[in-house]
Amino acid sequence: MNSSGDGFSMPLSREARALERSMMRDLIALTARPGIVSFAGGLPAPELFPLAQWTECLVATLRDAGPAALQYGPPFPPLLEAVAQLMDSRGAAVAPNQVLITTGAQQGLHIAARLLVDPGAASLVDRFVFPGVRQAFGGSERRLIEVDAAPGGGVDTNAAAEVVASTPDLRAWVVVPDFHNPLGSRLTAAQRAAVTSLAARVPVVEDDPYGFLDFAGQPRRPLVADAPERTIYLGSFSKVIAPGLRMGWVVAPAPLIEKLRVLKESVDLESSALTQRALARFLAAGYLEPHLAMVRRAYHSRAEAMVRALERHFPPGSRWSTPEGGMFLWVELPAGYDTLAHLRTALDGGVAYVPGAAFASAPAPTTMRLNFSNATVENIESGIARLARSLASARADQPAPTSVGSVT
Amino acid sequence: MNSSGDGFSMPLSREARALERSMMRDLIALTARPGIVSFAGGLPAPELFPLAQWTECLVATLRDAGPAALQYGPPFPPLLEAVAQLMDSRGAAVAPNQVLITTGAQQGLHIAARLLVDPGAASLVDRFVFPGVRQAFGGSERRLIEVDAAPGGGVDTNAAAEVVASTPDLRAWVVVPDFHNPLGSRLTAAQRAAVTSLAARVPVVEDDPYGFLDFAGQPRRPLVADAPERTIYLGSFSKVIAPGLRMGWVVAPAPLIEKLRVLKESVDLESSALTQRALARFLAAGYLEPHLAMVRRAYHSRAEAMVRALERHFPPGSRWSTPEGGMFLWVELPAGYDTLAHLRTALDGGVAYVPGAAFASAPAPTTMRLNFSNATVENIESGIARLARSLASARADQPAPTSVGSVT
Repeated sequence: MNSSGDGFSMPLSREARALERSMMRDLIALTARPGIVSFAGGLPAPELFPLAQWTECLVATLRDAGPAALQYGPPFPPLLEAVAQLMDSRGAAVAPNQVLITTGAQQGLHIAARLLVDPGAASLVDRFVFPGVRQAFGGSERRLIEVDAAPGGGVDTNAAAEVVASTPDLRAWVVVPDFHNPLGSRLTAAQRAAVTSLAARVPVVEDDPYGFLDFAGQPRRPLVADAPERTIYLGSFSKVIAPGLRMGWVVAPAPLIEKLRVLKESVDLESSALTQRALARFLAAGYLEPHLAMVRRAYHSRAEAMVRALERHFPPGSRWSTPEGGMFLWVELPAGYDTLAHLRTALDGGVAYVPGAAFASAPAPTTMRLNFSNATVENIESGIARLARSLASARADQPAPTSVGSVT
Repeated sequence: MNSSGDGFSMPLSREARALERSMMRDLIALTARPGIVSFAGGLPAPELFPLAQWTECLVATLRDAGPAALQYGPPFPPLLEAVAQLMDSRGAAVAPNQVLITTGAQQGLHIAARLLVDPGAASLVDRFVFPGVRQAFGGSERRLIEVDAAPGGGVDTNAAAEVVASTPDLRAWVVVPDFHNPLGSRLTAAQRAAVTSLAARVPVVEDDPYGFLDFAGQPRRPLVADAPERTIYLGSFSKVIAPGLRMGWVVAPAPLIEKLRVLKESVDLESSALTQRALARFLAAGYLEPHLAMVRRAYHSRAEAMVRALERHFPPGSRWSTPEGGMFLWVELPAGYDTLAHLRTALDGGVAYVPGAAFASAPAPTTMRLNFSNATVENIESGIARLARSLASARADQPAPTSVGSVT
C-alpha cells in the first residue's frame, strides 16, 4: 500500500511495483534537443516514408469502403493473403489462415510469450536484446536465460544447446535472424541450421522486424520456412513502410493462430479496420517493393558513411559491426570508456547514442548502439566526428589517438 | 505437448490451453448472413460515423504534420489536453498528465488488471459482464468474484460490501456506471455514493465506454470525480466517434499513468501518431459535440422503437430494461425459454440476438441482450416481430400470447 502522498493510495501488483521507466525512452527524450545529431532512436527515416502513397490509400479506402472502414475490424482477408504472399516471396510457404495481423510487432512478442511461457517458466534471449523482448518474455512473472553472441556475430548456438539440454522448463527461444537490434549482426548459415534443428527441442520465436532491409535486396529465407511447426514468426511493417501504421503480423500453425487471436483480443480486441484495408491496398498496388528498394539504397549509403566516419575518427582499438542491412551498428570501445557515464558529455557535444547497458541486464561500459537510418550522410559524418571528439576529451588524460581504428 | 497431428507440436502455456473461442464472436459471424436483422453485435451505427470529418482530419494531419504523423507516436500533448477537457466537461478535474491514450478501451482493461491484480488474486465483477472484462481480470491466472445486479437495476452494493469485507486479496472492482453491457442499466445516485465510499477499501476500475451516450444529453459525473485517488477510469472513442480509430483513454493519478504507460508499451509500444493527431484535430474543430447530439437522438429513437415493438410482440411475462442511453436492452423471458438453444431457430427466422449466457459463467436460459444502435427503426420493428414469432413457434405446445407483456 502506497500512502506516501504520491497522490494515489492503491495497492499495486508485484509487476507494477517492479516496473522501471524505460531507460531508452528517457535517453531518447534527451536527444530531442535542437542541434543534436542523434544516433540514438531506433527510428526509420521519416523523410523516406511513402507519405503520398499512404495518404492515397487511406483516402481511397474511406471512399470505397465507406463506414465499414471505421467499424470494428476483424481480420481483413485480402491483407492476410498479401502477407502470406510476402512470406512466400522469402521462401516460406504460408497460407492466409496461418497469419494474424497485430498492432505492431511488440504485440506479437506479448501474445507469443503468453502462448508459450507459463509464469515462472524460462525463455532464452540474447544477452543484448531489444527491451521489448524482456518486457514480453520476462517481467516480474517469467524467467529469462541469456545466451551470448558468437565471436564472429550471430548467436552462440553451442551455448544455446547447453541451456536447452539443462533447462527442463525452457519454453521459448527468441531469435533475431537478421540485422539484430542492437548488435546489427545476422545469423550465419550454420547458425540458422543449428537454430532450426534445436527448434525440435524448444519453440523458436523468430523476431524479424529488419529482415526485409537487406542491402543486397535478397532477404533471407526465414527460420519459419524450415521449422514451420515449431516457430512463431513475427513481422512488422514499421520499418518497411512506417511505424505510424501500427501494423505487424504473426505466422504460426493455423490452430495456434486461433489461440493467438483470442490473446490479441484480450489486449486490444482488433486492429484498425481502416489501416488493414489501406495496407492491403498499398500492397496490392505494388507500392512496397520499389519503396523498399529505395529505402535499402538509402540505408546502405548511410551505413557505409558511418563505417567510413568511424574508421576516420574513432579511437584506436575500437571495433564495430559492418551492417549488411537493418538500421544499427554496434560499437565496442577499448577498455576504460564508460558509455553510460559519457552520454551527457556527448549530448553537450551535440551528439547522441544509446549506451549498450540499455539492452543488457549487466553493465556493458564500452559498448554503444548507433542508429544510421535516421540521419543524413552529412550528419553522420559530422556527428561521428563530434562523438569521437567528445570521447577524446573524456580520455584527455591519456595519449590522443594516433592511428585509424581496427575494424571487424 | 500437442502431438495429435494438428500441424503443431509446441507445448503451450496453461493460459493458452485454457483459451476458448469467443462465443460472441462465433455468434456474430453467424449473423452476417444476408437478410438477417441483427440485434447481436455490440456495434455502433456505421451510417452515423463522421466519415467526411474523419477523412478531412486525417488528410489535414498528413498534410500539416507530414512524416511525423507516420513516425513512432509518443503521447500527443494536445490530445491529452483535449481528453482532460472532456473529463472536465463531466465534472472530473483531470490534468493532462493524468491521461494515457490507449489502443481502445480493451487495452485499458488489460493494463488496469496488470497494474492492480497479482496472479492468484481476486477482482469483483458483475455477474453479467462484457467478456473482455473476464479476459483481462480473469483468464487462467486471476480469480473473479461475481456480484449481482440490484433488483431495480445497477449493482447490489450491499452484496459488494460483503465481498469486500470477506476477501482479503480483493484487488479491484470493475464497475460500469452507465448503460451497462449487457444489462443496459445505470447506477442510481445511492449506488454511486456507495461505490465511491467502498473505493476506500478496494480500487475501482470505472469502465465507461457508453457514458457519453446519455439520451438526455447530460452525461453523469463519473465515479473518478469523487474518488480520484482510488479509481482507474477507462474511456473509449469507439462508441462516440468510431471503433476503427482504436482509441481509448485511461484517467488515473499521475504517478500511476507512468506505470500504466510502461505496461502499455509491453503490449504495443505506442498508439498511432497519425490517429492521435487526427483525433486531436477532430476534437479541436468542435466536431464531437454536434456529432454526439445526433447519435444520441438516433439511438434514443431506436431504443424507443425497440421498447414499443417489445410491448406489442413479446410473450406475456417478459421483462426488459428501459434504456436511458447506450446501445443495449436486456430481456428476461418467462421461465421455460432457452435463449441459447433457440438462437438457431431465430437465425432461421431471420433475426439475431446474443443469449445472456455469453456474458455469464453459469446458464442464464431466459435472458438475451438486444442491440438497438445498429438497426433502423423499421428493421427494429420488423426484427422484433420476427423474433417474437420465432419464440412463439418454440412454445407452440403452449397457449399463444393473449396480452401485451409487462414492462419494467
